Amino acid sequence: MASQGVTATIIPSTDPHASEYVADYWKERQWISGFTGSAGTVVVTSSQAGLWTDSRYFLQAEQQLSGSGIDLFKEGLPDTPSITEWLGKVLPSGSKVGINPLLFSVNSVVNLQNELKDKGLSLVADVDLIKSLWNDRPALPDAPVFVYSPQYSGKSAKEKIAAIRQEMAKKGADTYLFTALDEIAWVFNIRCSDVEYNPVAIAFGSIDKDKATLFVNPSKVSLNVADLLSDEGISVAPYNAVFEYVATLHLNVTVLIDKAKTNFALYQDIPAHCRVVAAQSPIFYQKSIKNQTELDGTREAMIKDGVALTRFFMWLEDHVASKTLTEISIADHLRELRAEQSLFIGESFGTIAGYKEHGAIVHYSATPESVSTLSPEGLLLLDSGGQYLDGTTDITRTVALGALTDEERTDFTLVLKGHISLGMAKFPMGTRGSQLDILARKALWDNCWNYGHGTGHGVGHFLCVHEGPQSIRMDENPTQLVPGMVISNEPGLYRAGKHGIRCENLVAVVEAEKTEFGQFYQFETLTLFPFDTKVLEPSLLTAGEKVWLNDYHQMVYSRVSPHLTDAEKSWLKAKCAAIN
Amino acid sequence: MASQGVTATIIPSTDPHASEYVADYWKERQWISGFTGSAGTVVVTSSQAGLWTDSRYFLQAEQQLSGSGIDLFKEGLPDTPSITEWLGKVLPSGSKVGINPLLFSVNSVVNLQNELKDKGLSLVADVDLIKSLWNDRPALPDAPVFVYSPQYSGKSAKEKIAAIRQEMAKKGADTYLFTALDEIAWVFNIRCSDVEYNPVAIAFGSIDKDKATLFVNPSKVSLNVADLLSDEGISVAPYNAVFEYVATLHLNVTVLIDKAKTNFALYQDIPAHCRVVAAQSPIFYQKSIKNQTELDGTREAMIKDGVALTRFFMWLEDHVASKTLTEISIADHLRELRAEQSLFIGESFGTIAGYKEHGAIVHYSATPESVSTLSPEGLLLLDSGGQYLDGTTDITRTVALGALTDEERTDFTLVLKGHISLGMAKFPMGTRGSQLDILARKALWDNCWNYGHGTGHGVGHFLCVHEGPQSIRMDENPTQLVPGMVISNEPGLYRAGKHGIRCENLVAVVEAEKTEFGQFYQFETLTLFPFDTKVLEPSLLTAGEKVWLNDYHQMVYSRVSPHLTDAEKSWLKAKCAAIN
Repeated sequence: MASQGVTATIIPSTDPHASEYVADYWKERQWISGFTGSAGTVVVTSSQAGLWTDSRYFLQAEQQLSGSGIDLFKEGLPDTPSITEWLGKVLPSGSKVGINPLLFSVNSVVNLQNELKDKGLSLVADVDLIKSLWNDRPALPDAPVFVYSPQYSGKSAKEKIAAIRQEMAKKGADTYLFTALDEIAWVFNIRCSDVEYNPVAIAFGSIDKDKATLFVNPSKVSLNVADLLSDEGISVAPYNAVFEYVATLHLNVTVLIDKAKTNFALYQDIPAHCRVVAAQSPIFYQKSIKNQTELDGTREAMIKDGVALTRFFMWLEDHVASKTLTEISIADHLRELRAEQSLFIGESFGTIAGYKEHGAIVHYSATPESVSTLSPEGLLLLDSGGQYLDGTTDITRTVALGALTDEERTDFTLVLKGHISLGMAKFPMGTRGSQLDILARKALWDNCWNYGHGTGHGVGHFLCVHEGPQSIRMDENPTQLVPGMVISNEPGLYRAGKHGIRCENLVAVVEAEKTEFGQFYQFETLTLFPFDTKVLEPSLLTAGEKVWLNDYHQMVYSRVSPHLTDAEKSWLKAKCAAIN
Repeated sequence: MASQGVTATIIPSTDPHASEYVADYWKERQWISGFTGSAGTVVVTSSQAGLWTDSRYFLQAEQQLSGSGIDLFKEGLPDTPSITEWLGKVLPSGSKVGINPLLFSVNSVVNLQNELKDKGLSLVADVDLIKSLWNDRPALPDAPVFVYSPQYSGKSAKEKIAAIRQEMAKKGADTYLFTALDEIAWVFNIRCSDVEYNPVAIAFGSIDKDKATLFVNPSKVSLNVADLLSDEGISVAPYNAVFEYVATLHLNVTVLIDKAKTNFALYQDIPAHCRVVAAQSPIFYQKSIKNQTELDGTREAMIKDGVALTRFFMWLEDHVASKTLTEISIADHLRELRAEQSLFIGESFGTIAGYKEHGAIVHYSATPESVSTLSPEGLLLLDSGGQYLDGTTDITRTVALGALTDEERTDFTLVLKGHISLGMAKFPMGTRGSQLDILARKALWDNCWNYGHGTGHGVGHFLCVHEGPQSIRMDENPTQLVPGMVISNEPGLYRAGKHGIRCENLVAVVEAEKTEFGQFYQFETLTLFPFDTKVLEPSLLTAGEKVWLNDYHQMVYSRVSPHLTDAEKSWLKAKCAAIN
């Protein structure tokens, strides 16, 4: 820092692509701090260091930072200063704060600049301190890129690129630069295994009026793949060539970028003689609206998931009394059962298996130190998902392993009421997720209870399990729900030290009736596995909610059972039995 | 226009205060076009003229514009161009469009400038063409200003001004200019009858660090009132002196204005050596949160409204068979009955009495040409309200005058279900109206039906019946609902050519429980008059909804009946009888 003339630096958890999951190469914050949580930011000054992270990681961070000299700053607590507030206090006025511009989006740099300026500090967005220090840094991943067939994607890359060029024309853009890995994978119909859980390649992308370029390490692209891409009008260039490409854009070229995602290093390289149009990435939006092939593939993946889950929960029932199963071992077994299904590629995220009080920790990830052994009592929350070539799944079930308390039954039933209410909703064209969110919460709000996470996130098609722009949350999001969008429906309730409950299906927006009052939409449930009716207090459900649940269970049985053995069929049939 | 060098002008319906209801003096659009509707904009070019208005006025505008040479542009229809789109088509590139800067807010001028620029046109915001043409223009109203006692307002003007100065300090403002008439009335504790329905004075206001000024025609202020204002630290200056006041602001003065409301003429007069801080007017927000005295007064006003409505509907029942009552005559009689109540000042808006198919016209206002005579059948929608010294009321009831169809019963019951569902809601601190809106619509959405207006608007305290910033609408509004806010709960359903239904109460946000999940809020119903259970199809209500309705009717009876004669008591008791 001294040699670079800065008195502090900020080290975030992301990569040059604003990714949720990052390759080991980019885990700078983990390397410098030893803290392995998925979210957190380290700040180093000439005499102090701190880590900012949120409540799900308070315990883990305290343990991992112990003895490191890094102080823990607990985000969300009233007395915790923000990073810039803290810097404003500990640094002399006029100090410079350095960041690596590759790891910050344009928008985040602008915000940082403004906040630091208010505190009499300045930002130097041109400092890579880690590069020269991290000697045993892992290599960038080198998994091969493969072409994702239109048999699964439903559209050729050529068609997608043509549609994007229409959006570019509307915005007067000559060139469109995109940096989010799932956007690149979707528009170019490629997949890869560079990143855990997300089947994407580390790359950049650009589309011009007459060419399209995939910037990716060429050693990852076989001649065959390069030929197939070329047939779709896509050239391959080295990963870092994107910087030269940007820097040499011609006079008067209009460049379209999404400032929420484009890293500041790339943005800085755009010549001053170009015009920048900032807008939400059109690939981001088009990707969220699944075509018929993508939806059909997802429905197939859901059947396979249902088969794996049937086998899993049968096995769990048979073995829980042995008291040999743990939160970790059951997650391993579930992965093995999914892996037996056709076209399985991997998990779509790290399984959350939370037994009893661990279920109340929303993003719990069992470690050898924390892991619980299951016994035949209490609730198990299991949130898991698979990546299949034909689709991505994400399902949470909360099941009874044995005797339950009345509170557990009531809590579960009210959460399920919310899930059903949202699942049954009809809504007019133009509706946003924030308008529907209350349906999932109302049964809880009526008791002055709530849950502290969103109700629904978009889900990719053999892509990231979290995608936008759509969501169902208390927060406003201007994105309207339109047919083809896939989104989760996952209300929950968490009682610290006791139990956690979440009921999650994936749903697709589909058309409902058109009346004199306009076109209405509704949800089609994609996920195929029964809710545990043993946990249910049926007297708390309305007649309409019972009809929905029984119909859903009947659909689950009719779609999943043809792929089961007789014993499995009987088991599933019992689980899908109608309640009254 | 030729002498001013412009080739078109835009004449809006508002005044220099962005008012909903304007004094006759400002009815420039009505004067030039003959169109008397409350919403509409006239555009005149050197060879053409047009009026833009919305669907509620299509018929009326067609009739009133007939033979005027002014074309009608129906807003909201897919083929109707916006005003600037139309100007872009009919004017030669480079043409200038003139407007009177007094009649446009800063924000609307900026939008207009941008839109016209896109079309190759420019705006001249400095043209008052009507002034020299309108010879028999009415005078500005000269009603006397009176002081609104803290007995009703609950706080002295001095206290309110001190609170506003704290907000100014937070924003670093030396001077705060405000132009909305209800904001001036609220913060200075004055009222007047310059404008129909809204008890406000035509004025401007300013608050500095050490003085506060009411800019109003001095002939409206008696010496006594001036003394009382002076005691509160408020000086009186002539109405137009606000322009000189603004123009002579000293070097480096920081001026706080709300650009959504401040007229462009005033804004232009702020010297370049001043700094402008643009923000939502702090009075606007503080005014929306009623204090205990204001809430208590509103509760009193509701009892009086309940008494007047009891007498009205008894009389209506007795006389409807005579077939002599009309939509106009019943509105007149209702006004007379309200006027018998103590502290009554006037109506809070023009009564909407819509019989049968007229009920489906959302903002229907009966005219001698359109008026229906009532007979003992079908539905009557009656939306009315009073201004009492102690509070403002606004209530809609839809009642059966005789035999009904099944459709009318079902429609009414589903609307009432929505009203009850919203009325019963509990919600966490931080909730916005847009999150709750669906509760009022869900029973309709389940049938793919909807209504095309908001569910709830804020209501002033002996002030405007429509006020912000809070609302309950499908549209996003970032304002959080907080205790003390008064808002309407008015779902509806409108079947063109058949009938219209609306169920409206006013409610106040109040505290509910605080749990481990945080502080929750709920609504207290303020309005006191029964819904017509004769229209109800009880089998469509849940047990919980019936409990709410029966409890509500019991409260209505217990609060209103002490003020009734024995005959009236019996009538109201029957109307409030529990359903099962």
